[in-house]
This record gives sequence, structure tokens and C-alpha cells, in this order.
Amino acid sequence: MPIDPRHPREIRRDIRNGKLTCITAGLGAGHVQANLAVLPRDCAYDFLLFCQRNPRPCPLLEVTDAGSTEPVGVAPGADLRTDLPRYRIYKHGELADEVTDATPYWRDDLVAFLLGCSFTFEWALLEAGIRLWHVEHGKNVAMWRTSIPCRPAGVFHGPVVVSMRPIASADLSKAVTASARFPGAHGAPIHIGDPAAIGIRDLARPDWGDAQEFRPGDVPVFWACGVTPQAVALASKPAFMITHSPGHMFITDVPNSALAAL
Amino acid sequence: MPIDPRHPREIRRDIRNGKLTCITAGLGAGHVQANLAVLPRDCAYDFLLFCQRNPRPCPLLEVTDAGSTEPVGVAPGADLRTDLPRYRIYKHGELADEVTDATPYWRDDLVAFLLGCSFTFEWALLEAGIRLWHVEHGKNVAMWRTSIPCRPAGVFHGPVVVSMRPIASADLSKAVTASARFPGAHGAPIHIGDPAAIGIRDLARPDWGDAQEFRPGDVPVFWACGVTPQAVALASKPAFMITHSPGHMFITDVPNSALAAL
Repeated sequence: MPIDPRHPREIRRDIRNGKLTCITAGLGAGHVQANLAVLPRDCAYDFLLFCQRNPRPCPLLEVTDAGSTEPVGVAPGADLRTDLPRYRIYKHGELADEVTDATPYWRDDLVAFLLGCSFTFEWALLEAGIRLWHVEHGKNVAMWRTSIPCRPAGVFHGPVVVSMRPIASADLSKAVTASARFPGAHGAPIHIGDPAAIGIRDLARPDWGDAQEFRPGDVPVFWACGVTPQAVALASKPAFMITHSPGHMFITDVPNSALAAL
Repeated sequence: MPIDPRHPREIRRDIRNGKLTCITAGLGAGHVQANLAVLPRDCAYDFLLFCQRNPRPCPLLEVTDAGSTEPVGVAPGADLRTDLPRYRIYKHGELADEVTDATPYWRDDLVAFLLGCSFTFEWALLEAGIRLWHVEHGKNVAMWRTSIPCRPAGVFHGPVVVSMRPIASADLSKAVTASARFPGAHGAPIHIGDPAAIGIRDLARPDWGDAQEFRPGDVPVFWACGVTPQAVALASKPAFMITHSPGHMFITDVPNSALAAL
């Protein structure tokens, strides 16, 4: 995959002008990418509380003022209506539209939540010299609903979703310490080893993504996954919700390496 | 000061029964103590957002469901109306009463916020072998309003308040790493050295607490302080607010050492 080395501001300008509509993997030159969840103000308190109570699956990077489209904390000057390549519009929990510009759907009562994503800790694992099978093979990670409940908040409740990566047993400690530095991107693994202990029956059959290949000595390592907040929000069937389309993330101005010190 | 080695559950029972009404320093055998801020639901969203945007001065340990008095995340079975030794009742930002039992003032629309406090990172500093002048001399730390603004949220805005401790220059790195492990208790210092750089004119005249003595080679080190959220909340003159009285904290079931891994 070709790497686009430009600053996120320039990438976002191309996305805003419709020149870039692809997935954002490899874009943004090592800057933090974020999941987007936009909800009406009347359920934003419950969602904010849900994220506060479940920081591993829901690491909040930014919450906009109601009606504002600018994520001033992580990307001043950006516009969340236009600066992601692709959006999904949900009504009462059902997909109603998929668009490259969310402006026609934006409302004054909307609050935008930006949540950290696994790209940042995967970068940290790779920098630490840890091999990641799905990166080497151009696949997605494997994801499952677990038997671990999130702590509920108001209308929002549901299980923690995890992503799994096979890690060489000699690298387990390094995988923990390298990812733990980034609580804003799911942090340390929430489980290492026996999948059954967290309600996963078959490692060959993920709920989302691709099954992973294990090399001899590899151990399954499970991180809390950003699919959790979207799955939980949609399960509550909110009257209205906007999210990014899978893989089409918001690129912030925060370098991956700086997220550890935010 | 005599140390009471009993588990927080037993201490809280004595507080609830009116047997213990003193300040909580030294109580709870190394368990995390928390600041209390209780606000009506109609301004709880703004306050939750304020804490999310200002995690160093406002490290949230627990937010109750509206109307609930039980902090299920950090002390299941406890009752926030009775389990602190002393409370302050504020109306429109003015102190209206000081009580040892907040039950008569509790309402169904109240949300309780528990915020980490400096006791935990001071414990970490002492465990790391760092001398703290105010502990050795039975004094309070020194606190100031700074020129650093909090990021505002809704009706809440104001400067970051810091506490200052003189630290030997040879111990500065250790002071950073030891406290950084505990973001739930204000985390790493937000400033080291020159007080004027953060708007502090005179180290001998703190806004709150006691002036500190410097030994040769000591450097002033500034941590974000739990006075910030209370000062900010009261400045907005909320119609109603309950806080702990200074020094009369809520003692959780979380060991100090476990806060690093929450």
C-alpha cells in the first residue's frame, strides 16, 4: 500500500474536496486516526457516561460542543461533516444512507465523539519489533463479542468486543508494555490466552474480520475493540446516529507517539 | 498521626454510624481516597464533559447513575449520603450548610462524581523514596490558581489549580515516573521549575494551603490539583451542589497500588 506522507491537514483538505474517498489506512503519516460516533444531545450524556465507565473499549479522544463540527482538541480547523471519506447514517438503529459528505444530515443538536483506534497501538507493536500476521498478509484482525459485559450507562449496554492478534510467547510482555502506553488507543490487552475464558468458542470463526494464522508458539492476545461503542450505540436504536464507514476514519493532528503523553 | 489499619468497609461503617467524624488522612490502609462533587442532572452533562476534557485536574474515578447513592465501581455497598465524615452544601455557589449526614439534602436528580486525589500519588512518591516537606512537617501543600486555562465545557470554565511540592533535583525524574503511573490521581506533574511561566508570582504566598520550605537544590514541582473541579463548579454558581468538606474524603475499596491498572 503506498504511503501518503503529507500532514493530516492536507489529507483532510483533499477528503473535504472529494479528491480522496478511500480507506484511511496508511494515510496521515503516523498521526492518530479516530472512530466517529455522532449522537443527538438527548442521548449524549448516557453515551459520554458509557465511555467514561468503559475506557478500554471506548477511549475518548474528543467530544465536541453540541452543534459544533470542529474537534478543537485534536484537529483545530477541521470539519467533521466533510473531513472523513465516508459516513454511515443510521435511523432507529438501521442503516439509512452512506455518504461522502454528512453536511445535509448535520443538525444543531448533534454531539460528535472521536474514539481512539487500534492503528496507534499496532504502530507501537510494530515499532517494538512485534510481527503482526494480519499486517504482513494484508488482512483484517479477527473480532468477537465476548462474555465480558460493559458497565452499562443509561440506555447503553452490551458486551465488550475484542480484536485478537496472535503474538509470539516471547513477545507477550513487550506487547503488553508497548500497547499499555496508549490508553487513548485501547491500551493494554484485556485478555491473554484461553479464548473460552472470555466466551469465545472458535478462534477460526470470528464475528467480524478475518481468521488469523498462528505460528508455532503464538498465543492469542485480545484487546478491547472500537467496534464496541458503535455496536452498543446501535443496539439501543437511537433515533439518529452518524458514524464513519468501516476503515474510513478521521485523521487527527496528534502524532501517534504523542498520544502517550496527552 | 495514628494509622487505622482496618479495611475501608469498616471505616465507612464507623463514619456512617457517626463514630468517625475526623479528616480521613491516614485512614483506609492505603486505599484510594476521592473528592466528591454532587450536582443536579441538568448540569451533570457539562460537568462530565468538563472532566473528560481536563483529565489531569479532574481524574474521574466514578460517576453514579442519577439518583443512585452507591458508587458501584469503586465501593459496592457504600452510600455516598452517609459514608463521608463531613459535607458542604452549596446553593447558587454559596455555602449554605455543613453536615455529617447528607441524607436530608439528597434528591433523585443528583449525580455524584468521585475524583482522584493527591494522597495516591504522594504515597507513590514516598514509596519511591522521595522526601515530601509537608508530610514531614504535618503541613498542607501549597496551591495556586495558574494562568493555564482549563478547556471549557458548557457552563464550566476556569483556570487549572496546581499543588506544589519542593523536590530534590536528583529526584525529578523519579517524581515524574512515579506519579505518571497514576493518571487517576492527577498523574505526572504539569509543570517543573519557573513558577512565573504558569502565572505564579510568589512561591511564599500560596492561594490555599501552606508555604513550603525549599532545601538547597530543591525545585518547585507542580501537579494539577483536585481543587480545580470544585472551584470551577462553584464559580458557575449551580443552583445546588454537595461536596466533601476539605480533608474529609470518600475512602474507596481500591488499593492505591491497583489504581495504576484500573
